Amino acid sequence: MTDSSRIHAHYWIETGVDPRQAAEAMAGEQSSGTFVKIPGETAELKRRSAARVESLVELERVAAASLPGAKGSGPFQRAKVRLSWPLDNMGTSLPNLLATVAGNLFELRQFSGLRLLDIELPEAFLDAYPGPQFAVEGTRRLSGVHNSPLIGTIIKPSVGLSPEATAETVRQLIDGGIDFIKDDELQADGPHCPFEERVDAVMRVIRTQADRTGKKAMFAFNLTGEIDQMLTRHDIVARHGGTCVMVSLHSVGLPGLAHLRRHSALPIHGHRNGWGLYSRSPHIGISYAAWQKFWRLAGADHLHVNGLRNKFCEPDESVIASARACLAPMFAAPGRGCEVMPVFSSGQSAWQAADTYKALGSTDLIYACGGGIMAHPSGIAGGVRSIRQAWEAAAQGIPLADHARDHSDLRLALEAFPA
Amino acid sequence: MTDSSRIHAHYWIETGVDPRQAAEAMAGEQSSGTFVKIPGETAELKRRSAARVESLVELERVAAASLPGAKGSGPFQRAKVRLSWPLDNMGTSLPNLLATVAGNLFELRQFSGLRLLDIELPEAFLDAYPGPQFAVEGTRRLSGVHNSPLIGTIIKPSVGLSPEATAETVRQLIDGGIDFIKDDELQADGPHCPFEERVDAVMRVIRTQADRTGKKAMFAFNLTGEIDQMLTRHDIVARHGGTCVMVSLHSVGLPGLAHLRRHSALPIHGHRNGWGLYSRSPHIGISYAAWQKFWRLAGADHLHVNGLRNKFCEPDESVIASARACLAPMFAAPGRGCEVMPVFSSGQSAWQAADTYKALGSTDLIYACGGGIMAHPSGIAGGVRSIRQAWEAAAQGIPLADHARDHSDLRLALEAFPA
Repeated sequence: MTDSSRIHAHYWIETGVDPRQAAEAMAGEQSSGTFVKIPGETAELKRRSAARVESLVELERVAAASLPGAKGSGPFQRAKVRLSWPLDNMGTSLPNLLATVAGNLFELRQFSGLRLLDIELPEAFLDAYPGPQFAVEGTRRLSGVHNSPLIGTIIKPSVGLSPEATAETVRQLIDGGIDFIKDDELQADGPHCPFEERVDAVMRVIRTQADRTGKKAMFAFNLTGEIDQMLTRHDIVARHGGTCVMVSLHSVGLPGLAHLRRHSALPIHGHRNGWGLYSRSPHIGISYAAWQKFWRLAGADHLHVNGLRNKFCEPDESVIASARACLAPMFAAPGRGCEVMPVFSSGQSAWQAADTYKALGSTDLIYACGGGIMAHPSGIAGGVRSIRQAWEAAAQGIPLADHARDHSDLRLALEAFPA
Repeated sequence: MTDSSRIHAHYWIETGVDPRQAAEAMAGEQSSGTFVKIPGETAELKRRSAARVESLVELERVAAASLPGAKGSGPFQRAKVRLSWPLDNMGTSLPNLLATVAGNLFELRQFSGLRLLDIELPEAFLDAYPGPQFAVEGTRRLSGVHNSPLIGTIIKPSVGLSPEATAETVRQLIDGGIDFIKDDELQADGPHCPFEERVDAVMRVIRTQADRTGKKAMFAFNLTGEIDQMLTRHDIVARHGGTCVMVSLHSVGLPGLAHLRRHSALPIHGHRNGWGLYSRSPHIGISYAAWQKFWRLAGADHLHVNGLRNKFCEPDESVIASARACLAPMFAAPGRGCEVMPVFSSGQSAWQAADTYKALGSTDLIYACGGGIMAHPSGIAGGVRSIRQAWEAAAQGIPLADHARDHSDLRLALEAFPA
């Protein structure tokens, strides 16, 4: 499947011109061509550097253009197209790969719709990028959670708590037996909750608990910031005995993540806020299948996939497809598949555990609940227990309602939160 | 206009629920709220940290939702909304600002359409970011072009030329009197044209010409890559006497650009490839007015704005609005407006000079033609002369056809390229 000398990219297109011509324009614009024939574009140079249309499969036609600014008056033909580029055009560079497969082509007038669906990369990228350092196995080792999902939560309120108030929330969460806690992506290093003070206060609580029980909850500290700030903050977390850092991926960019990865001694939790820009429109954007490959190679260990029946607009089948993509090897090289741990989050409570397990067929995931834990009628500890009980039921194949009968935290959760 | 303690952001929304409720959900999701009321969200914390709906102006209603996944069955109300956040929520951090004003909210089910239209930032951001280092004045000083646009071009074919072939093209361009040349965004450091060899070959030609004539053409070398690679490549360019570097902005991210800016002794040419993802749909995305403020603060000196009657799908009025935005101060502090030089590019030839000048009312711009220079019937030097003649005519108010009568390069260009 892998072509060792070429990049392949799959697109969904909609065009008001001949689809073959549209695909050729795309290939030309993104490699050796321009809008007029120019002298330097020799046959030899084209042979060496031109992108190729590898396949084109026509789909349905629609009467109206889905996006404005396109050539043609209709009908508009939809199609799937695969292009390929010589690896030597951009070398094994993710930022330059992005400019090639997802650069100017979204603006071409040949298209009234264009989505990047997937990419296939030569294994040479593994020489340039280390990929995830911890992923599923390393995360399980550091958190001590081996046969179930990491039950997690997000500190709420998202922003506004002091370091001490954050640490107090953490204390209640770990008293309840939580495995994983993350900062909200809105909480980084604002003056009400400075990064180092937060790490100090939170890790004091986590270390005390670890000393007492042997179980060290994993806290993903949001170190999103400038390049040097991120390295400094990483070192602060490591120095205080922390076991995870978090970044907002779109905020730090591919080179920002790769730079942090090369420095990091800790798992990197990749938050995808801003993802709606890529995913929300069916007519323009980048699919999760393509998107996650960039961030995996650049070094994320955990990637967000939303959750079943989430508070956002993503359908359940899309969520599960994303989680499966995270767990599937992206290269055939043994031990170099770059698999990462999917993070289920957004409106999650005890209700979705069984369906998540059934759909994914794996417990290699982080299951993060915000309000689903924090707003539990018995308090935070009850919230954590209710999620764990829901996953016990899921893994043992016990119907949720049956398990709730003799597990009061689960029962209260099912009553309190919307199915 | 500037609020010293709060960030303001303007949005276009479309919603199937009550627009006031939708705006409140947006403010809650992006600050202290979550999908259920939680104990820690006290009145005091909300007072300190909650985002506010500052204004809401209802626009038209539409029968059908523009984007899938939204609540409601119609009609869908469109509106303009202004939200504000306490600066203390994220501090003066561009990556964390991005996660706040353009993070999860694109995925909210309250919206069937959402675009970030503009942002207003406190001047405190000027303490955290240096903004552009060279901008219009520094670029004019380094290139020696004072009273007209910088006439520029892009090396074509975009990718595939060897360093020697690139340098030979540069020789022809500067023989023709070009002011500015850039790498294509597809050309970075591939094995057929390694970065340092290209810089060496190109700068040899440029230095020779500068020694002979006193005029040193500005070449923007595309150093897009990993963090350390970018700094190394910058130093290579500086060491060879180069006067400009280029980055693909979306490829390197805000911290990547800011890191380069703090290190850089050269103007940074910001390429916006991938911009179509933000701009192409009227129903989701980020407007240029908001987008460019992030990159200006992070340190770009030149920003692409497309061009009139471009080969892409952007309407002319949008192109001119973008160029005006680049030239308008974003802060009132004297000398700290962070103005940058707009770059007109994409299908540009002698044809668009007069209209560009008329619409913008300024020559503070780079006017980059690819095929419009490279494919000129008299060759590259004739192509450069034709553009210069077109701008002479524009600045002097001479109709293009009149000027073409006794300027054969211009005449040939008008015959060869589509109006």
